[in-house]
Amino acid sequence: MKAMFMFLVLLICNNILASAGGCSYNESWFENMPIDHFSFENSDTFRLRYLINTENWNSDGGPIFFYCGNEGSVEGFAENTGFMWENAKDFGAMVVFAEHRYYGKSLPFGNESSSNLGKLNSEQAMADYAVLINWLKTNITGAKNSAVIAFGGSYGGMLAAWMRTKYPHLVDGAIAASAPVAQFSGMTVCSSFSDITTEVYRNASPSCALSIKRSWPIIRKWGKTAEGRLDLAKMFRLCNETQFTSKKNVTQLVNWLTDIYGTLAMVNYPYATEFLKPVPAWPVKVACQFLNDTEVGETELLHRIYSTISIYTNFTGKKSCNLLENDYGNSVDGKLWDYQACTEMVMPMCNTKDSMFEQSDWNLTEFSDECFEKFKVRPRPDWAIINYGGRKLESATNVVFSNGWLDPWRGGGIVNSHFRGVAALIVEDGAHHYDLRGSNSADTASVQTVRLLELGFIRKWIKNSSLRQNRPFYYMKGNAE
Amino acid sequence: MKAMFMFLVLLICNNILASAGGCSYNESWFENMPIDHFSFENSDTFRLRYLINTENWNSDGGPIFFYCGNEGSVEGFAENTGFMWENAKDFGAMVVFAEHRYYGKSLPFGNESSSNLGKLNSEQAMADYAVLINWLKTNITGAKNSAVIAFGGSYGGMLAAWMRTKYPHLVDGAIAASAPVAQFSGMTVCSSFSDITTEVYRNASPSCALSIKRSWPIIRKWGKTAEGRLDLAKMFRLCNETQFTSKKNVTQLVNWLTDIYGTLAMVNYPYATEFLKPVPAWPVKVACQFLNDTEVGETELLHRIYSTISIYTNFTGKKSCNLLENDYGNSVDGKLWDYQACTEMVMPMCNTKDSMFEQSDWNLTEFSDECFEKFKVRPRPDWAIINYGGRKLESATNVVFSNGWLDPWRGGGIVNSHFRGVAALIVEDGAHHYDLRGSNSADTASVQTVRLLELGFIRKWIKNSSLRQNRPFYYMKGNAE
Repeated sequence: MKAMFMFLVLLICNNILASAGGCSYNESWFENMPIDHFSFENSDTFRLRYLINTENWNSDGGPIFFYCGNEGSVEGFAENTGFMWENAKDFGAMVVFAEHRYYGKSLPFGNESSSNLGKLNSEQAMADYAVLINWLKTNITGAKNSAVIAFGGSYGGMLAAWMRTKYPHLVDGAIAASAPVAQFSGMTVCSSFSDITTEVYRNASPSCALSIKRSWPIIRKWGKTAEGRLDLAKMFRLCNETQFTSKKNVTQLVNWLTDIYGTLAMVNYPYATEFLKPVPAWPVKVACQFLNDTEVGETELLHRIYSTISIYTNFTGKKSCNLLENDYGNSVDGKLWDYQACTEMVMPMCNTKDSMFEQSDWNLTEFSDECFEKFKVRPRPDWAIINYGGRKLESATNVVFSNGWLDPWRGGGIVNSHFRGVAALIVEDGAHHYDLRGSNSADTASVQTVRLLELGFIRKWIKNSSLRQNRPFYYMKGNAE
Repeated sequence: MKAMFMFLVLLICNNILASAGGCSYNESWFENMPIDHFSFENSDTFRLRYLINTENWNSDGGPIFFYCGNEGSVEGFAENTGFMWENAKDFGAMVVFAEHRYYGKSLPFGNESSSNLGKLNSEQAMADYAVLINWLKTNITGAKNSAVIAFGGSYGGMLAAWMRTKYPHLVDGAIAASAPVAQFSGMTVCSSFSDITTEVYRNASPSCALSIKRSWPIIRKWGKTAEGRLDLAKMFRLCNETQFTSKKNVTQLVNWLTDIYGTLAMVNYPYATEFLKPVPAWPVKVACQFLNDTEVGETELLHRIYSTISIYTNFTGKKSCNLLENDYGNSVDGKLWDYQACTEMVMPMCNTKDSMFEQSDWNLTEFSDECFEKFKVRPRPDWAIINYGGRKLESATNVVFSNGWLDPWRGGGIVNSHFRGVAALIVEDGAHHYDLRGSNSADTASVQTVRLLELGFIRKWIKNSSLRQNRPFYYMKGNAE
């Protein structure tokens, strides 16, 4: 349960990042988006935001590169998906980034949106994208026969893949990067995320994973007494050390650390990236350098643990203290994603005793009760499986699933395909949707290869799409018989 | 606009028909169907009804023949889809007929359902079917790997086709009989229905179509005066002849006649069928025998028109008078379908001056105003196109669209396919979803051929499905790379 906000963390970061991809765009609005596509009780609409760039577009039917926004403001995705921007010119492509309803500025109920969450779900968001794509093709001169390629990373990658499977008449192909479409009950073991994270840390340094494992009982032991909690609060430079007074606070600390380890694995890229908190190249390796001795005393170990996580929380050294509450789950976007996780995006998470994490089980009842307490909703854990099918992709066509082998989300992704229409590409040394990032001189050979393969698929999909447009469709009786 | 209830008419009829197919079934209920699959605001559920027969089922993975109920009580479809029953044994198939929410006994809001229409639409109904299919496969021992073949006629055929395109992981193939998936704005000319109906009558007898065409101005002329209206009321044996007093009533009469002509074309089967009102074999030809002289006087013409439509309204001669209001659109099911037509199933209808009908235009604004007056909703005419794609079936697989060439709905159907995964089969001398009916000694060669082809497709889909089930799915890294 602890890793629930993993998508999000990365994406909050992205939002804050300054324009790294060199992208420029117009902020546009689709004015009359139905608030509810699946009921006609009221005809209220809202403004859906999208970013658009037609500089490189071949207005004689050039393709549309369409990013399916996920759980955050759309600028963040525009600025961290250099792959689309870098290749737009070659393809003569229009570039569009659509914002996911409820996030950023796309607010179905204006300022009251966060207290009216009933229309927040993937189906409504995808219907928004379908309406927007149809509108672009209908209203932009020259776009009528344009091929549409959907892109997305993480939850956005799930949406991209599903846009192709659910709306194949509107989307010609999809690049679904690090999309855990099978991170649902019964499809992937709940320990998958933490198992892979553990593997990443062990590979960086076996003593690192061992030291982290060693730290949990120490934290719990210290956390049992008021004195120990004060020591913990000082050790981890908590801003409100006087309020770090309960066992619940200790659990918060454990969750905070757990999330940071996972996040570091997700952003474990071969070059420095500047998220909310900048991190160095191969941050897991850098972080692990402090944990090279499994024999140090308890106090020293926790000091070193703090140095380790500071690679993520305070790489620049400018931060004076840490606020557990603010970092995860309590931001606006955090609450929105939490609602989605509490309704249909129910992704069981647990840690085995063999992982480097504190052991924890997945308990649906408990999870459901927490959701009910927070939002007065209960999860429908089967619905995403029934609606989207998980790994049952026999009938899908023109979908590329790419996964970084070092990405904790890889376990819920499609890493192998026996199906003609689905390609599973592995970035061997890659973290979370590494392939969607802009190119970098430090890029690994595997990400370069995967990007080339993806471009090849995109080229093929566009070609097939244009062939299809030219194919006549007969209605004659004689022809039909 | 006048032919809006065409689906319905037939189906009301079906519901009343006594068990003609020799089918037997258990009436069952899916107890906890979410009222809203696309919002989590409330967790209310309702009971969805389905009929099930496992007598012939091979419980070691035999297929599931699943009928996607359309706008009426489900028994009617069970009793008029002999094709499924007759072939269940050969295939060792389980037979399931699912009821469409809001119709029959599947009432989301109990007795208040007809005043709470917000959750009545195709997406919610299909989500019901998906949940039910998943439940059957999960809970019936031996059904886990069963292939699922969706069947449906008319609107039910649209649902069957879309179940395959939207839920291919749950449905292995679909027989979509007389499914006008392209009967939407801009895809099919609005006069298509009446043009084909006219063609059917002209083929039966040119003087028949001419006589019908001649009747409209006479009816309108008579309808201008009180005396003329009384004559009309007597001529057409209206039950409430004293209330037939306005021009609006005359329009009702015109619509009533128009609908009857269309319905007769839809049930123009080569053998007598017993619907609400029994009709003879080739009823259009029989009806047209009265209209063999285009030169008769006005009164005589209207007398003969009455004889013509009596083939449908009163073939047994037992009916004493006609109630215009009750026959069309004012039944419970009629209002429900009307709501669907007023929201997403917006099918433009018009009559050209060259048709045998009174000329009429399609006017969306007027239609929208009528809908608003009736239901306080306005149509979203683009939504079904955006959501389902109409004729854009490039990516569809394992769908058979069958159409009777003499069926008025054929124009909005798929009568030709250039796509590998979609077959368009024509029953040359067939009316509305003739192929779904049980076999009859009077069956035409073309319907027999089409049924054989359909069985061949079904066999192939089931075989491919079982091959797929046995195919292992690897997760190994080495394998993936």
